[in-house]
Amino acid sequence: MVSRTDSDVLYLDDLQVGQRFVSGTHAIDADQIKAFAREFDPQPFHLDEAAAKDTFFGGLAASGWHVAAITMKLLVTGGAPLAGGIVGAGGEFAWPNATRPGDVLQVTSEVMEITPSRSRPNRGMATLKSETRNQKGEVVQVLTAKLVVPRRAASATP
Amino acid sequence: MVSRTDSDVLYLDDLQVGQRFVSGTHAIDADQIKAFAREFDPQPFHLDEAAAKDTFFGGLAASGWHVAAITMKLLVTGGAPLAGGIVGAGGEFAWPNATRPGDVLQVTSEVMEITPSRSRPNRGMATLKSETRNQKGEVVQVLTAKLVVPRRAASATP
Repeated sequence: MVSRTDSDVLYLDDLQVGQRFVSGTHAIDADQIKAFAREFDPQPFHLDEAAAKDTFFGGLAASGWHVAAITMKLLVTGGAPLAGGIVGAGGEFAWPNATRPGDVLQVTSEVMEITPSRSRPNRGMATLKSETRNQKGEVVQVLTAKLVVPRRAASATP
Repeated sequence: MVSRTDSDVLYLDDLQVGQRFVSGTHAIDADQIKAFAREFDPQPFHLDEAAAKDTFFGGLAASGWHVAAITMKLLVTGGAPLAGGIVGAGGEFAWPNATRPGDVLQVTSEVMEITPSRSRPNRGMATLKSETRNQKGEVVQVLTAKLVVPRRAASATP
């Protein structure tokens, strides 16, 4: 479980448009790709090297939802140190390149927009654009998500 | 692994705007929620009932990415019988309600747009809007995704 003290994390009031965060890395292998696929995305191109060859992907590739889940792990474990954690309401995603066995993924995020809530003084929304890249610098996922972020003032109130 | 014969599946040419599909169901429990969270989204509101009480969610809730992954499983295992499988390029998502232990999820999808490729005669894009609901009929996820779908004519060519 991720646990941080108040001084480590950023409240809505601490964020600025253009602020950037860089995550740790995650190395993905064929076993992880197949295990995720067996549970959530059982399609030939995520399950079996030989079967994947004749598909759109031309070889074993990770499920896009697996890439999204790894991206979340990288954000939650230091890639976006927000107070209250990473709580998404929705957003947009794209997978411009396939993720392959042996890839090492890393997430770079940028604050795009900050919107204090008019009705709820204790929180607001921040839009975070997170690009997940492999070790060659190729972007494998772009995620632009609206996050619920608490305000510092409110949280100081007992 | 999902395997279908040619007559079971829909090519781009077989799709119509407004066409609807309904998936099977998936029952989610606290153990599944915590197992996914430990691997991909280790935040208190996905890991521990007691710790979740004082958070935005007010109790244990599934990671949104877990809901997305279960939605994919339901689409792949009969919820959207597309030739070539479910291959997403990107799209939009929203999580309007939390998913809780004991929820039974089902996905209803509708074809929103069909766009044959100008440069690649053997495929095109279809936009599929998939609403994931719980047993009370509450929408827990809306996913609007652009999918790569092969064309029937091209696939008949050896």
